[in-house]
Amino acid sequence: MLWNDLAGAAVLDLAQPMRTGMPQSPNHPPFRMLLERRHGDMVRADGGSAANEIIITGGHVGTHVDALAHVSHEGLLYGGRPAVSDHRGFAEMGIDDFPPYVGRGVLLDVAGAHGVPVLPAGYEVTVDDLEKAADGLEIHPGDVVLIGTGWSRHWADGERFVGARDGVPGPGAAAGRWLAGLGVRAAGGETIAFEHLAPGKGHALLPVHRILLVEAGINIIETMRLLPLLESGVREFLLVLNPLPVVGATGSPVRPLAVIPAVAGE
Amino acid sequence: MLWNDLAGAAVLDLAQPMRTGMPQSPNHPPFRMLLERRHGDMVRADGGSAANEIIITGGHVGTHVDALAHVSHEGLLYGGRPAVSDHRGFAEMGIDDFPPYVGRGVLLDVAGAHGVPVLPAGYEVTVDDLEKAADGLEIHPGDVVLIGTGWSRHWADGERFVGARDGVPGPGAAAGRWLAGLGVRAAGGETIAFEHLAPGKGHALLPVHRILLVEAGINIIETMRLLPLLESGVREFLLVLNPLPVVGATGSPVRPLAVIPAVAGE
Amino acid sequence: MLWNDLAGAAVLDLAQPMRTGMPQSPNHPPFRMLLERRHGDMVRADGGSAANEIIITGGHVGTHVDALAHVSHEGLLYGGRPAVSDHRGFAEMGIDDFPPYVGRGVLLDVAGAHGVPVLPAGYEVTVDDLEKAADGLEIHPGDVVLIGTGWSRHWADGERFVGARDGVPGPGAAAGRWLAGLGVRAAGGETIAFEHLAPGKGHALLPVHRILLVEAGINIIETMRLLPLLESGVREFLLVLNPLPVVGATGSPVRPLAVIPAVAGE
Amino acid sequence: MLWNDLAGAAVLDLAQPMRTGMPQSPNHPPFRMLLERRHGDMVRADGGSAANEIIITGGHVGTHVDALAHVSHEGLLYGGRPAVSDHRGFAEMGIDDFPPYVGRGVLLDVAGAHGVPVLPAGYEVTVDDLEKAADGLEIHPGDVVLIGTGWSRHWADGERFVGARDGVPGPGAAAGRWLAGLGVRAAGGETIAFEHLAPGKGHALLPVHRILLVEAGINIIETMRLLPLLESGVREFLLVLNPLPVVGATGSPVRPLAVIPAVAGE
Repeated sequence: MLWNDLAGAAVLDLAQPMRTGMPQSPNHPPFRMLLERRHGDMVRADGGSAANEIIITGGHVGTHVDALAHVSHEGLLYGGRPAVSDHRGFAEMGIDDFPPYVGRGVLLDVAGAHGVPVLPAGYEVTVDDLEKAADGLEIHPGDVVLIGTGWSRHWADGERFVGARDGVPGPGAAAGRWLAGLGVRAAGGETIAFEHLAPGKGHALLPVHRILLVEAGINIIETMRLLPLLESGVREFLLVLNPLPVVGATGSPVRPLAVIPAVAGE
Repeated sequence: MLWNDLAGAAVLDLAQPMRTGMPQSPNHPPFRMLLERRHGDMVRADGGSAANEIIITGGHVGTHVDALAHVSHEGLLYGGRPAVSDHRGFAEMGIDDFPPYVGRGVLLDVAGAHGVPVLPAGYEVTVDDLEKAADGLEIHPGDVVLIGTGWSRHWADGERFVGARDGVPGPGAAAGRWLAGLGVRAAGGETIAFEHLAPGKGHALLPVHRILLVEAGINIIETMRLLPLLESGVREFLLVLNPLPVVGATGSPVRPLAVIPAVAGE
Repeated sequence: MLWNDLAGAAVLDLAQPMRTGMPQSPNHPPFRMLLERRHGDMVRADGGSAANEIIITGGHVGTHVDALAHVSHEGLLYGGRPAVSDHRGFAEMGIDDFPPYVGRGVLLDVAGAHGVPVLPAGYEVTVDDLEKAADGLEIHPGDVVLIGTGWSRHWADGERFVGARDGVPGPGAAAGRWLAGLGVRAAGGETIAFEHLAPGKGHALLPVHRILLVEAGINIIETMRLLPLLESGVREFLLVLNPLPVVGATGSPVRPLAVIPAVAGE
Repeated sequence: MLWNDLAGAAVLDLAQPMRTGMPQSPNHPPFRMLLERRHGDMVRADGGSAANEIIITGGHVGTHVDALAHVSHEGLLYGGRPAVSDHRGFAEMGIDDFPPYVGRGVLLDVAGAHGVPVLPAGYEVTVDDLEKAADGLEIHPGDVVLIGTGWSRHWADGERFVGARDGVPGPGAAAGRWLAGLGVRAAGGETIAFEHLAPGKGHALLPVHRILLVEAGINIIETMRLLPLLESGVREFLLVLNPLPVVGATGSPVRPLAVIPAVAGE
């Protein structure tokens, strides 16, 4: 049976922890979790008590998946559909249209290919970088490809992580087209935007979003915590990608998992 | 490799869709998703535009996992720890302490054992029911056990689904103890509260929560959409259960997946 | 000086208290207030501690003022302006365009004219009712006119107050036109919608909103607590109406005040 | 009648406009307003359409009033009451316990007394400053006293306004005690915290909050837009201060109004 194959396998958590104040894009509603009831506020006759909370978040906050409806170009979504929505969100290509993915994942460790733990701020990942990192790996249509920049290492330093001043490393337009050409199911990485952001330029232009979401119909995964995967040395794995089925939304938080054969010493 | 074993496997989505107005407990902050930016609100120089949203939810809304911190008894959480928290939530036993689960799941189809598509409102699931439904199945410590009541079929009828007037079917205290005795990792079902709720009684007492969460340290999964699993006929499967890592929260929405061998005709 | 004139005057609070679970329209985001920090969560070096909260509300929840931008007809707002908006809301005719009002208020006590404490559910207030209630009162252009139905008395009975089944009393289209003809600055009352809602009909058509907001440019005040004013016997008063300056919003909560000469026995 | 006395009077709006991104304390939930329905999303049979929004805010965001429950010292609120609360907030001394104020207001223009439009960042307002600014003015018990620093002029420069790096001007502990000694009903000003904040020190200690809220039972008003009052030259006025009656909350947004005799040229 399927679960027998998992004996000894390791489950790597590829999501950043979600807490009030965590790094996120200023373009999106900030994440906030606060308790509503604490234990003791309401005690049942039998001595029981339940605590609960409210969670406020954008759909593009923390580790998340971009729906195809997230980005339009000249008023059109992927496939030339009009980029219309109403108070219920998007009738199609919302995040609820993304079928949960359980399949092959491939890591292209560009930082590793450069021999560094983390790429410099503002570094543009090139096609050459991707080809070097993919050396020896097969990428099939329908796979999910993750690009390792090591940027997860800066998570605790929010200002650097967001990169408003110094930029963040990520794929340029050419690298985006290279990914699109592979026919992958989704692609993503560790930064808030899966883009090369030059210092001080911010999110003025997001070509990789246009190429992947609008032109190729490929979903994007952002703000992933790839460290455990990068450090495992494993480049092919079973990936689980199951964003919440928020009907009509342009994105959703997700807790991606990589399942890998047992790693010695773990 | 692991993913090769999945060739032809089906991935069943066990989460209810999340939309404003969906059935939920009146004890928790109501779910709401609304777009903030729509396409055309802000158009970049290159003709690109991004839509986004805000999501407001309780941690116990839609398909979700209860953290051990959710319920206390006489001021204590599981293991006798004081049920204290602050503005950051719970320092331990929050939902972020639940390690993502990828492992064996077992379905006890009590509705099926009764030969009905859905159990009556207010029906108490007994130990005898569970034993009959478990006939021929092994349950190992660390497994996740799901109880099928068929209640997912009422999702579209919110008033009935919530069951304030007529109650909902679910395990009574004895059934809860039976589950606890198995040493499972988590247990859950289709109703908002994984409890037997008698007509008109509401959530006055929640013995199964006390037994599982406080006494046994077993997480609970609620408001699952078990229909595709019930209809598949499969009773053992690979279950993925990865609630969002909301630090310090007492619960989190989740999109559970059941991976099963290919079903003929699907 | 102005404040000397107020010696002995009474300040009547015309707002309903705002709390989680209060009656409101299901068409608007529900009000919720919850504490984030409680005392003791964070204690400063000097022994000080601050508690705070989050407030989530619609702009048309609790006692509130409707901005002209709230309602359109055939795609146009008041004055024939296109009913367009973006992620920042409305560039004009939002609630921030309503200048705070400190001026004359007039109460037309229709319930009193009928000799009842509260009008029946589903009662349509007619022009004749308004004329009788206005007997002996002058209404000048620019005044604010409030219509007393006594409906505030049902505030504690949320289901009745909302009136989904039995309706609520309020002005019909003819009464709305009568008000519009007076050239008043704003008009309002005690119910959630300042309309006559027939039993079981809900908010299918809202003619008074069209007449006042779209055709006449007159703001509407809803869910007022008029009881203290009705019971005072005073029909002319100094009214303060100062909704929050939420830029671009279609409405805002408000705490209206009526200042009246001292009432014997108070 | 009261309103006749207002003939020709000017109503000055003392609230800052509320919009997403406005300056506020990072200690409180950020303000956000977004439209839910836009015109055209749902059109009624008669061609009518209604737009609406959601508003998310802290109680201490924008122009607001601090309730006595906001601050405790050594676990006690004003009057020695225990600083306890539950999921409904505070049973007493919440902002709903603040009776709406319509009465005398006095402006102490400290910036003007220094001959500057705005006091320097980090300037501590002293007792001497207050006495000079109060020269020729009477302050009675029960009045509301506002302190002019001119800081409203920096509203458009959010970073400077918040003052995390350079501080903000405001009363020190001695000035706070001077105010408390007057027995005023409330006191406030233009900055986010009604305190002297030295450069780089942040909100580590808030002595004026302790003195006014905890020791003297005097409410505080913050983030006021005093410019129109400062520029009017008027120092005594009719003040309206009516925070929303949010039951159990520690503060609420408010739109304070100053009513002054007609100003020549307006």
